Amino acid sequence: MRYNPITIEIIEELRRIVGSKNVFSDEEKMEAYSHDETNAEEYGHMPEVVVTPTTAEEIAQIVKLANRELIPITPRGAGSGLSGGAIPIFGGILLSVEKMNKVLDIDYGNMMLTTETGIVTNEINALIKEKGLFYAGYPMSLETCYLGGNIAENAGGGRAVKYGVTGRYIMGMELVTPKGEIVNLGGKLSKDVTGYDLKQLVVGSEGTLGIVTKATIRLTGLPTAKSNLLVLYETPKAAIDTVPVIMAKGTIPTSMEFMDKLSVKTACEYLNESLPYQQAGAMLLIEIDGTNQEQVELEAEAIGDLCMENGAIEVYVADNYTTQERIWSVRRNIAEAFKVVSPIQSLEDIVVPIAAIPDIIPELDRISEKYDIKIPCYGHAGDGNLHATLVKNPDHTLEHWHEIEPKALRELYQVTKKLGGKISGEHGIGVKRKGYMLENMDPVELDLMKAIKKAWDPNYIMNPGKMFDLDESN
Amino acid sequence: MRYNPITIEIIEELRRIVGSKNVFSDEEKMEAYSHDETNAEEYGHMPEVVVTPTTAEEIAQIVKLANRELIPITPRGAGSGLSGGAIPIFGGILLSVEKMNKVLDIDYGNMMLTTETGIVTNEINALIKEKGLFYAGYPMSLETCYLGGNIAENAGGGRAVKYGVTGRYIMGMELVTPKGEIVNLGGKLSKDVTGYDLKQLVVGSEGTLGIVTKATIRLTGLPTAKSNLLVLYETPKAAIDTVPVIMAKGTIPTSMEFMDKLSVKTACEYLNESLPYQQAGAMLLIEIDGTNQEQVELEAEAIGDLCMENGAIEVYVADNYTTQERIWSVRRNIAEAFKVVSPIQSLEDIVVPIAAIPDIIPELDRISEKYDIKIPCYGHAGDGNLHATLVKNPDHTLEHWHEIEPKALRELYQVTKKLGGKISGEHGIGVKRKGYMLENMDPVELDLMKAIKKAWDPNYIMNPGKMFDLDESN
Repeated sequence: MRYNPITIEIIEELRRIVGSKNVFSDEEKMEAYSHDETNAEEYGHMPEVVVTPTTAEEIAQIVKLANRELIPITPRGAGSGLSGGAIPIFGGILLSVEKMNKVLDIDYGNMMLTTETGIVTNEINALIKEKGLFYAGYPMSLETCYLGGNIAENAGGGRAVKYGVTGRYIMGMELVTPKGEIVNLGGKLSKDVTGYDLKQLVVGSEGTLGIVTKATIRLTGLPTAKSNLLVLYETPKAAIDTVPVIMAKGTIPTSMEFMDKLSVKTACEYLNESLPYQQAGAMLLIEIDGTNQEQVELEAEAIGDLCMENGAIEVYVADNYTTQERIWSVRRNIAEAFKVVSPIQSLEDIVVPIAAIPDIIPELDRISEKYDIKIPCYGHAGDGNLHATLVKNPDHTLEHWHEIEPKALRELYQVTKKLGGKISGEHGIGVKRKGYMLENMDPVELDLMKAIKKAWDPNYIMNPGKMFDLDESN
Repeated sequence: MRYNPITIEIIEELRRIVGSKNVFSDEEKMEAYSHDETNAEEYGHMPEVVVTPTTAEEIAQIVKLANRELIPITPRGAGSGLSGGAIPIFGGILLSVEKMNKVLDIDYGNMMLTTETGIVTNEINALIKEKGLFYAGYPMSLETCYLGGNIAENAGGGRAVKYGVTGRYIMGMELVTPKGEIVNLGGKLSKDVTGYDLKQLVVGSEGTLGIVTKATIRLTGLPTAKSNLLVLYETPKAAIDTVPVIMAKGTIPTSMEFMDKLSVKTACEYLNESLPYQQAGAMLLIEIDGTNQEQVELEAEAIGDLCMENGAIEVYVADNYTTQERIWSVRRNIAEAFKVVSPIQSLEDIVVPIAAIPDIIPELDRISEKYDIKIPCYGHAGDGNLHATLVKNPDHTLEHWHEIEPKALRELYQVTKKLGGKISGEHGIGVKRKGYMLENMDPVELDLMKAIKKAWDPNYIMNPGKMFDLDESN
């Protein structure tokens, strides 16, 4: 695609649409909008202009302008993404929803909340907590990310085993289409088969099918009781083999997090923490929640028994807040800990069938050894979503890293595919992984996706270059 | 669209593809394939030929033939649909998946099952029951319907409050696209953001976006404990107002069924049954399930208390199988009971925000009075999905019924829309409701749907005339 540059006339027109204070193009201010949480050097790109509209109508006008002038638009939430989805790789207009953060309606009768999408996800939970409710679709980054970004990426998180991911909670949305029309999809409805489910198509489409300006989300009763187990195993296989056994017994844990020995060791060193049996081959961190503490503890006990019957060395019950925090802190700090080993990494989020997790461990060891890099493995065992992260060897040159990173990634994805998995479980494709789509996806499936993109966005102006490229031959 | 007729040459070609025993075109045999569970006289239409392929490859060849010759294909499951989705309204090829009913894989490690889609839904549960598992996405008609039909309609049912509807359980599928390509979407994965979620787009697309030949479904631990409450109220409003209160308390019931006085009375007369306080203005039938009988009973008790605090006259606990069956039998037989009043009806399944249900009751009374027909209201209160059914007045002529039915339907849908609802919560649009789509849906949304249909099915051969018509101007 060839796009037209942003001219002074276009900046003037943008100012007329959103007001002068919502348009800027000085390099210094724009720098923050040139990258997300992926490696800025590798993936960053400057926009030509940043706009911060305050209404869907303004966005619709901007999108119509972009269609008329053939200018790419990159929608952006908090910029906390991990696949480069919000990076304006073709320049053009960076459209940030940061000023659209009003909660419009808290409907306790329907247990739904309607909000603009530039809201920080955690603020939703803060608002409704005292009413005994929470938004269960939130990801791990809830303190910084925006709901709009969660929707674009169909974000998942540590509680997804029980509660599912973002998409399950998006009941309605206001969407500005790639042609600049405003449409409301879904509603405050638990069930709806009136036509295709377009809102679920938009969820996870990484801003390529339009800009979600409002969302109606389903709220859930806030669990008031909680219990945590730290379960130690000799081997990763023993740990993982327990997961489906637990899932089949009826009590679905909130979380089942897996940490290999390397991850635990690195995080503990980083935190100057010591966990019991730190030398265990692998650990499961299991959280159970509910409304009755006694019942939750009974369930935790039953799960602990299942673990012991299925090869655990030991089960530690974290029955108070302090202990729970100590354990979870280890889990949450694994990524940070490896940044000390090397800030240069490729944080991955492959997803495989849960029963295939044990089979991927030796493959990670093999790739790790072959390229002489560390590949700690941790993540959401309960849903097969693993952060197998390639960490640059501090002894290697940057040049060498750039040479081996794509090779190691390619091998990681090949192994994932062979085991029935996919290359992204929650972080998305964006610009970081799009080069690996064709070799990991049936071309027929990719063509079906491209057909939708072309039908909805014929001028290819809405977040182009993300997920896949529309090439000439298609 | 103008389609070409089925010629002898085409029948010969179909025979070569699927074998002679899987092709027939005699009227008598085809009659069963000319209608579903909607009124046959009004909606039925004969196919020109019926094929019963046994593999996806055969289906792909048939679809390619249909594209080449411009012949419509209507995919069909068990024919238990309630919106005419499986009726071959343009004649052409009726493609039944009835011979594709093999279970291919029961994967206990991943708690997933892969099957051909011509299987009767209940057979899946029969197969896995002894392993303590069940398929939670099943609809009320599970003893006759096929999984393929459930997927096409995104079928819901009485347990959807807790477990959700079909779509939540469809993790992967083999799809024959409208161009005749075979593609696998999704997999044995709990999370997946590798591109657009095409499988959820196909779910509920009523066979217009391809034919699902295999599905991988997620299994759930079979609940071993159960309790039922029959809760009586003076008014529908009092009953409905309790629903969100219960939902907010954390224990999500399996079912929360609503029955108005007229529905209870008619079903009880039909069954020669008597329920306590049959003259109550409305009843809620609440089921709670779990893995521990004691806990389930505690939860049921807590819900019963909530009901009493929120205006219930009385709460009856059905604590044994016989009593549970008696109550549920009333609920299940409402539709049948009204068929005795008049076999001619329009069984509807409007869906509204749960808090809006009380507001719809007086509107139903108004429409009922205006057209002098009965409109019993019952259904899935926990998800706002109500079977407000128009029942022909036996004193009216058929001609009069045909005159007032569309008018009453139109008013019902208008009221539904005004309350933030949609015209179908679980039965689908098909041919029965497509005439009401434009007035009940933003034309932008409809155009987005049509754009996908046109992009995937340029020759418009896959179940044409369902959900919407592609007119010349689009």
